[in-house]
Amino acid sequence: MQVSKVNALDYEEFIEVFGNVIEHCPLCAAAVWKHRPFSDVRHLHEEICRFIDDLPVAGREGILRCHPDLAGRLARAGQLTKESKREQEAAGVTSLTPEESQRLDSMNHSYREKFGFPFVICARRNKKEAILEGLRTRLNNSLEAEVEKGIMEVKNICYLRLLDLVDHEGVESRL
Amino acid sequence: MQVSKVNALDYEEFIEVFGNVIEHCPLCAAAVWKHRPFSDVRHLHEEICRFIDDLPVAGREGILRCHPDLAGRLARAGQLTKESKREQEAAGVTSLTPEESQRLDSMNHSYREKFGFPFVICARRNKKEAILEGLRTRLNNSLEAEVEKGIMEVKNICYLRLLDLVDHEGVESRL
Repeated sequence: MQVSKVNALDYEEFIEVFGNVIEHCPLCAAAVWKHRPFSDVRHLHEEICRFIDDLPVAGREGILRCHPDLAGRLARAGQLTKESKREQEAAGVTSLTPEESQRLDSMNHSYREKFGFPFVICARRNKKEAILEGLRTRLNNSLEAEVEKGIMEVKNICYLRLLDLVDHEGVESRL
Repeated sequence: MQVSKVNALDYEEFIEVFGNVIEHCPLCAAAVWKHRPFSDVRHLHEEICRFIDDLPVAGREGILRCHPDLAGRLARAGQLTKESKREQEAAGVTSLTPEESQRLDSMNHSYREKFGFPFVICARRNKKEAILEGLRTRLNNSLEAEVEKGIMEVKNICYLRLLDLVDHEGVESRL
């Protein structure tokens, strides 16, 4: 979709198209609709990031809690959003060996117990080895560091989802 | 569900149960989960209200934008959430005369054009005559007044949805 078309969407259409660029949080798209016209996809992304940064910290933790575990219960039950499913498959976490799967489950559990939200990482930018290693090291972080790190990953995921939806010739695909 | 059981839910279960007490905004439930234990349903409601009040104003407008029109496109397409469907039916807005229906559509449209979000009213606390009259007068308000008024209605809707989910013997059903 061209940016000019994005800018012409009414809020219902806008939420329908961009409602899941932040997983299960259509509120984020709904909040930034008023900031159109967007000059390009990067501008749209910046407005979403600014909205997230302006939330109380409980809101940023809440965003993380709306994300599924990697290769977790929802993945096994076939209940991931289409975006998450595709991302987890691309990273290879849906085809783990039994040993890897057990390790991931166990670390996901420890992470949730420690922080009260799931481990979030941009699966399209990391393969399964990097994900397992990232989870192992991030388990040692403080709560504050993990809210910040997790939200950075949420913003990366969002950017890639936006690039899937908006024409972006000439726009950097890396943040 | 008893409050003691609410307080024992992990965040995934909590979001599953309370994710739609604010229409299409599971983020609100996800954000307040950390504030458990809740002393009663009122306390849970207060935490959700506080979270909403602490949002930047774009967030409050975003919450309004996540609501469907009364007797609008989604209602006609059978795509309302189960909570909205029940509420709209209770208010009688799903069985309007052709004249009432046309009046409501026309005012809904004017409202959205003026404010950039839909007219939100607690349908379980208002019958169709009060809703049509409320919409007519509220069309004259300022943007600021309507964000405030709409969010007050969102909080009322939320309270009634919470009462449906949590045992509340001895708790006032009116806010």
